[in-house]
Amino acid sequence: MKHGCTEDEKQHVIDRLTALGYGTNVSGVEQTVIGAIGVLDRDRESLMEQLGALPYVERVVPVLKRYKLASLEFRAQRTTVTVGGVAIGGEALAVMAGPCSVESRQQLFATARVVRDAGATILRGGAYKPRTSPYEFQGFGEEGLKLLAAARDECGLAIVTEVLDPHDMDLVCCYADMLQIGARNMQNYTLLREAGRTRKPVLLKRGGMYPTIENWLLAAEYILAEGNPNVVLCERGLPPYGDTNLRRNVLDLTAVPIVKGLSHLPVIVDPSHGTGKAALVPPLARAAVTVGADGLMLELHPEPERAWSDGPQSLDFPTFQALMRDLPPLAAAVGRRLRSA
Amino acid sequence: MKHGCTEDEKQHVIDRLTALGYGTNVSGVEQTVIGAIGVLDRDRESLMEQLGALPYVERVVPVLKRYKLASLEFRAQRTTVTVGGVAIGGEALAVMAGPCSVESRQQLFATARVVRDAGATILRGGAYKPRTSPYEFQGFGEEGLKLLAAARDECGLAIVTEVLDPHDMDLVCCYADMLQIGARNMQNYTLLREAGRTRKPVLLKRGGMYPTIENWLLAAEYILAEGNPNVVLCERGLPPYGDTNLRRNVLDLTAVPIVKGLSHLPVIVDPSHGTGKAALVPPLARAAVTVGADGLMLELHPEPERAWSDGPQSLDFPTFQALMRDLPPLAAAVGRRLRSA
Amino acid sequence: MKHGCTEDEKQHVIDRLTALGYGTNVSGVEQTVIGAIGVLDRDRESLMEQLGALPYVERVVPVLKRYKLASLEFRAQRTTVTVGGVAIGGEALAVMAGPCSVESRQQLFATARVVRDAGATILRGGAYKPRTSPYEFQGFGEEGLKLLAAARDECGLAIVTEVLDPHDMDLVCCYADMLQIGARNMQNYTLLREAGRTRKPVLLKRGGMYPTIENWLLAAEYILAEGNPNVVLCERGLPPYGDTNLRRNVLDLTAVPIVKGLSHLPVIVDPSHGTGKAALVPPLARAAVTVGADGLMLELHPEPERAWSDGPQSLDFPTFQALMRDLPPLAAAVGRRLRSA
Amino acid sequence: MKHGCTEDEKQHVIDRLTALGYGTNVSGVEQTVIGAIGVLDRDRESLMEQLGALPYVERVVPVLKRYKLASLEFRAQRTTVTVGGVAIGGEALAVMAGPCSVESRQQLFATARVVRDAGATILRGGAYKPRTSPYEFQGFGEEGLKLLAAARDECGLAIVTEVLDPHDMDLVCCYADMLQIGARNMQNYTLLREAGRTRKPVLLKRGGMYPTIENWLLAAEYILAEGNPNVVLCERGLPPYGDTNLRRNVLDLTAVPIVKGLSHLPVIVDPSHGTGKAALVPPLARAAVTVGADGLMLELHPEPERAWSDGPQSLDFPTFQALMRDLPPLAAAVGRRLRSA
Repeated sequence: MKHGCTEDEKQHVIDRLTALGYGTNVSGVEQTVIGAIGVLDRDRESLMEQLGALPYVERVVPVLKRYKLASLEFRAQRTTVTVGGVAIGGEALAVMAGPCSVESRQQLFATARVVRDAGATILRGGAYKPRTSPYEFQGFGEEGLKLLAAARDECGLAIVTEVLDPHDMDLVCCYADMLQIGARNMQNYTLLREAGRTRKPVLLKRGGMYPTIENWLLAAEYILAEGNPNVVLCERGLPPYGDTNLRRNVLDLTAVPIVKGLSHLPVIVDPSHGTGKAALVPPLARAAVTVGADGLMLELHPEPERAWSDGPQSLDFPTFQALMRDLPPLAAAVGRRLRSA
Repeated sequence: MKHGCTEDEKQHVIDRLTALGYGTNVSGVEQTVIGAIGVLDRDRESLMEQLGALPYVERVVPVLKRYKLASLEFRAQRTTVTVGGVAIGGEALAVMAGPCSVESRQQLFATARVVRDAGATILRGGAYKPRTSPYEFQGFGEEGLKLLAAARDECGLAIVTEVLDPHDMDLVCCYADMLQIGARNMQNYTLLREAGRTRKPVLLKRGGMYPTIENWLLAAEYILAEGNPNVVLCERGLPPYGDTNLRRNVLDLTAVPIVKGLSHLPVIVDPSHGTGKAALVPPLARAAVTVGADGLMLELHPEPERAWSDGPQSLDFPTFQALMRDLPPLAAAVGRRLRSA
Repeated sequence: MKHGCTEDEKQHVIDRLTALGYGTNVSGVEQTVIGAIGVLDRDRESLMEQLGALPYVERVVPVLKRYKLASLEFRAQRTTVTVGGVAIGGEALAVMAGPCSVESRQQLFATARVVRDAGATILRGGAYKPRTSPYEFQGFGEEGLKLLAAARDECGLAIVTEVLDPHDMDLVCCYADMLQIGARNMQNYTLLREAGRTRKPVLLKRGGMYPTIENWLLAAEYILAEGNPNVVLCERGLPPYGDTNLRRNVLDLTAVPIVKGLSHLPVIVDPSHGTGKAALVPPLARAAVTVGADGLMLELHPEPERAWSDGPQSLDFPTFQALMRDLPPLAAAVGRRLRSA
Repeated sequence: MKHGCTEDEKQHVIDRLTALGYGTNVSGVEQTVIGAIGVLDRDRESLMEQLGALPYVERVVPVLKRYKLASLEFRAQRTTVTVGGVAIGGEALAVMAGPCSVESRQQLFATARVVRDAGATILRGGAYKPRTSPYEFQGFGEEGLKLLAAARDECGLAIVTEVLDPHDMDLVCCYADMLQIGARNMQNYTLLREAGRTRKPVLLKRGGMYPTIENWLLAAEYILAEGNPNVVLCERGLPPYGDTNLRRNVLDLTAVPIVKGLSHLPVIVDPSHGTGKAALVPPLARAAVTVGADGLMLELHPEPERAWSDGPQSLDFPTFQALMRDLPPLAAAVGRRLRSA
């Protein structure tokens, strides 16, 4: 829409699109952008002509990608997602850290204090765990959520935790500041839609059977299309080519600038899952900052060798603290800063 | 247990395992096999000694694989799964065929008659479709299920259809003879467990972020561990290495004899998704029979070029009929027969 | 060219193309096809017009694929490659079998006799071995070639053996009936060109860093473009997705009908490397015949457990003999026969 | 050997190993390390005992990896490779830059001056090009080598260029300061051995059919085992998972710290091939420095849109110059510096 258009003018465009059977999506701060969803190829040109003729419409831009709401064409302004008061996608890097699984009050609180004191702002911890085998520890469920909420109250950190089951969506929303959709569920469309029906920020990990960047943005589109604009993408590694004794996945840092060129959504990097080995986490975390990520997700444990899950990739406290001290000059070199600065 | 053991003796073993905190699973026709689930490494030896000392226990065998109930060690006798009167896993090959999506009564019924007349016994058709984009056709839902049920009534075919959402599980069970878990959901543990809580036969397609054979059997284990023994595995192709213009996936026929060497569960092959091109379906279907598959799943459409989804990989009627005529000598060459024979 | 054109007319077209700076390639039995190589996009149309105007030219067909000589557009008639009297690509299946490495006169001759008696016609055996480590057995070199030639003389089999080093090309040509280019060398363009400068039949295995079907045909094009038309393609498996304990590669049988739809060259299948496990070789060999392969390459050893290389994937004699007995009905079912029939 | 051992004592150990049929390799600056090559498992223990009993032997360490000379166990001190006066592997980062192919004197010299003025120290340029199709430009051969040498003389840069054909090895050695073995040839053992027989520094790109890190180190071992210790590894990306329109390969930056943990050899990163898109090169180059690489290889062209090969991934001069200005603070943050500093 032209700068300075009225509410009535906007509504007129929306009504017209609705009457033609299209969905709509409104965005923009200084200038309003109205998106039409579901336009068929054969109708595109005539619609562009009709709308372009309206005096208060500045420009009609076709979004030819399969994802629309997630695309830079649709929304040129970068999105900032606010999680419990922490902005992701702005100048400050968002560091999320914590244990793979919530194991005990003591484990969680000890970790949370270290997370906070080192300058990270979001606490992660799993209450529902997706496990390859049905006989492995599956998480404490609501008990774990309660511990996370208690840790938030004590430490003033926002919390992010994974949701696996659509049935648990409401419950997890009661406790969490941000919902995590894990890599195995990137193409679990039921779960994506349910997360889209909430307004909670969603951390969408890259994965699924075809973990392409296009499919990742289409997965984000499922959430956005339900009306939830608060999506943060998380790169966490592709399946490896051999060398499975040396690492767990192949962290694809190139995905960060690629996504930045296609989408307005923030992107963070998880070098813990992305490498699977604690010794590899600090160099890859540093590289992630340098490549332009909006934040990091790090696994951290008071005693990694005793962790119930993901021990080999969990940092111990001193290594995490050292890494956090290494980040500010790297952030500065790419025009960013750590939140704590 | 020894041949001829009494019910009391079996119960004694079960009670003892239960008292120790283990799950149990009983199988076997001529001879009873009692499985203990959840035994820790450190307790294995002493448990084997205790149980082995009982006079009516013939042998105690440790199952060291991460999957237990799915393993040949656990159950040496091959499983036959019965779907609406059709046995999968016996001498006869089970051919499932039908459209990707249920599109109309006419489309479905015309297809169902061709399926039946050609000697196939199970009708496939999607009422809920997992689509990469939220803007693509998502299936007719319950309306589609009703049409499938009507086609079953008219043609005497069993029906298999995909379930995507745990919320739909009861509804799909009302109509379907067999539940399909699609490739994208192979590691959707919530859905696997829900399917395990029904007693419906489940067709578990291979896929997920790490589509290894071990992970496939662990996914089956999620269903089996909930008490549903009726699992049929379906190979449908791995993500391709380039050449995406030439085909959709890389059908892994070697997986069939590998699984047969590891598990007692039946395995069928879907060359439609496995290749993505109709012209490639007949040769790969023939090869699947020769490699030892227990059946086939084939996509079929009255007018593939007008199909709402998966048109390029759908067979037209004459090609399907010709393929069905080609199968009997191949089946015979590997000691099998087509059901219709 | 039109049916019945004269030699002068053919020469005229060739001269004209040569004068314009293009390479040429003549093929066809009943009808002559003259290929122009190196035509730029911008010159294509005018050249087609000029040549199409000649009265003895029937049709000018642009070959838009990156490979030309290998394409079906260029040569619609299927190629038959004759190796020491054995035709590959005709009605009869060509079975090549033998040890991974030539280890001794006794090992090779014992194997050769079993190969011949079971009805296979080509003996394989490695004298130069590509090994991942420099410390592994690298083959007997010329000594091995001499043993292969002696086995040929005694058993009346043609022989195929791998060439690794351009320096060895002449030497290997002195002894072998067919040169094998191994999977690791599919994009070793120096070696491909050297093989193209001989007129020996070449068995080109699929592999290289990007083992796509297009790259495989482009590798064949390197040989064909040097003037050697005797290329046989061999599918032998893609790198695996995990499960490396269960098999060595992922045999891509779909590649056979795909290549048949793109190229006139014969295609055989090597289920020994394609699976890496002897127990998987017979079912995959059967499937390869059914899917339309022109032949098989099988590793065979008198005592697989003592083989110096590739023991786990080598068949013992009884298994090989049983497999050979299983093939005729499968071959018949797809309109082929075994040579021995 | 113990600190301060005599030459006679060293020779005694070497003679003893030679007499037992083993190869030997001597390294170490402050302390001498004598490596025994080719020790069988069954002889290891007795040999360790014998040698350990010698008074001037400090310790006998078994190297159990399949690669020996390349391993950190074998040589704990990091290797520095000197290329035309430029050290790779020390505190200073080595930046190699230049065109994909040498196209003309003007193109090469213009580029070389920009390379030098921006603070890079090694000029790259291809005279022999490995091309997927035989019809693509294959490089100027010796003419290109001469131009590279002339550019070196004028600009004072060392030069690195690819060798494809063992027949060209001597010729390339006459002109180049460093030989490049390209990704497609990582498992071309003939070429690796020939490069090992020279004493020229070798840049070994990661690739081949199974581009695992173990195979990469084994490829280096082929060169080292021939007696050439001057090997620099170069990470340049794994084949992609789909998204082939978005990039060419998946740059595996994690490989850098993994290799640093396994081997004493220097490792550089090529983000040009590693991404395939010029816009992605600067962020990945920055990340490569941060992750601990010993240098960079960058493709650069006066007019990328007119490059004869690899145009889309070639930087133009201003982008290259800006990138070079961005590197010093990142290098400083990880304890390194640019050579020009």
